[in-house]
Amino acid sequence: MDNIMVIGIAGGSGSGKTTITEQIVAQLGADVTVITHDNYYRAHHDLTYEERTLLNYDHPDAYETELLIEHLAALRRGESVEVPTYDFSIHDRTEETTIVHPSSVIIVEGIVLFVHPELRDLMDIKVYVDCDADVRILRRIIRDVQERGRSLESVINQYLATVKPMHEAFVEPSKRFADVIVPTGERNPVALDMLVNRIEAHLGTR
Amino acid sequence: MDNIMVIGIAGGSGSGKTTITEQIVAQLGADVTVITHDNYYRAHHDLTYEERTLLNYDHPDAYETELLIEHLAALRRGESVEVPTYDFSIHDRTEETTIVHPSSVIIVEGIVLFVHPELRDLMDIKVYVDCDADVRILRRIIRDVQERGRSLESVINQYLATVKPMHEAFVEPSKRFADVIVPTGERNPVALDMLVNRIEAHLGTR
Repeated sequence: MDNIMVIGIAGGSGSGKTTITEQIVAQLGADVTVITHDNYYRAHHDLTYEERTLLNYDHPDAYETELLIEHLAALRRGESVEVPTYDFSIHDRTEETTIVHPSSVIIVEGIVLFVHPELRDLMDIKVYVDCDADVRILRRIIRDVQERGRSLESVINQYLATVKPMHEAFVEPSKRFADVIVPTGERNPVALDMLVNRIEAHLGTR
Repeated sequence: MDNIMVIGIAGGSGSGKTTITEQIVAQLGADVTVITHDNYYRAHHDLTYEERTLLNYDHPDAYETELLIEHLAALRRGESVEVPTYDFSIHDRTEETTIVHPSSVIIVEGIVLFVHPELRDLMDIKVYVDCDADVRILRRIIRDVQERGRSLESVINQYLATVKPMHEAFVEPSKRFADVIVPTGERNPVALDMLVNRIEAHLGTR
């Protein structure tokens, strides 16, 4: 199906990827399907909970990206796919899956999406949401401490141990592959209009 | 006139600003007017040619930006303006002016556009064209040595004496004010489509 447009939205943890994705969906609704790379975190049924908490979830290899590539290629061919579900509270994939049908516009969202050449090749538009590291860690603290009840110490430890080094090793360098960089992702109505108008132009020419 | 859209296109010397502007005009034609900040380089009739060659043309103060601000505000009110002409071969403003009439879309192009808060406030969309410094200096060498017949030594001297330090002091920090950052400006058809579709949506709703 040549009339499917795949938009990749990447950027660091706390950069505002999810917000801009939600804003696009709010404006365009039913024509847009969202797939999240986080759903493709690898299953680790063979490990104990304790062992799973020690894994590095910020490295690109933490994801079963080969399955996401397969799924995007299938959606592009007009086939439906079964997207896995990941449960963050147990650090493991669950048995549930979600059926996703091909739609005119597919948004793929994830931190390390642009690291993978095969994944990049499946995207028509690559958007990198850029945000200062200090603002990103503050958002992460608010989310993880205030909303998810984690201790401040554990959030800071994880940030310094894996989030920050993986960001610098993989996420930031992958910005180079973006077609467009959107600063201050949480609140950028001008960039949002541009993305929405681009998608509308695509939908109008179907 | 509320139906005028002003798009600022900024970025370092050799970043590809002019190319992307030309590509937009090639696709949208008559509805788009282009104004170049370079036309607003200050007149220096009081200085000799030798004295003029010694000025720093890469500092924001080299431009009569107050006049550009006046002109953009006038165009937004639906008034025509007389844009000055600058002759790079004599490093001075000439007597000629060009009448510019208000149009639905005005593109303002320049290196240090986003440095000025008043200028930024007149823009609906601020695009920063981003490009590695090594690629930018190579383009500058090709333009100035091969096309304009300057010596390689003089291009390198000017680059290290003013272009680079002013870029780092003013241009690069002004990226922070951009709504959208376009990497590899010379050849980025995906970003071009986004800009064109955004402008088309504006033109369609007049």
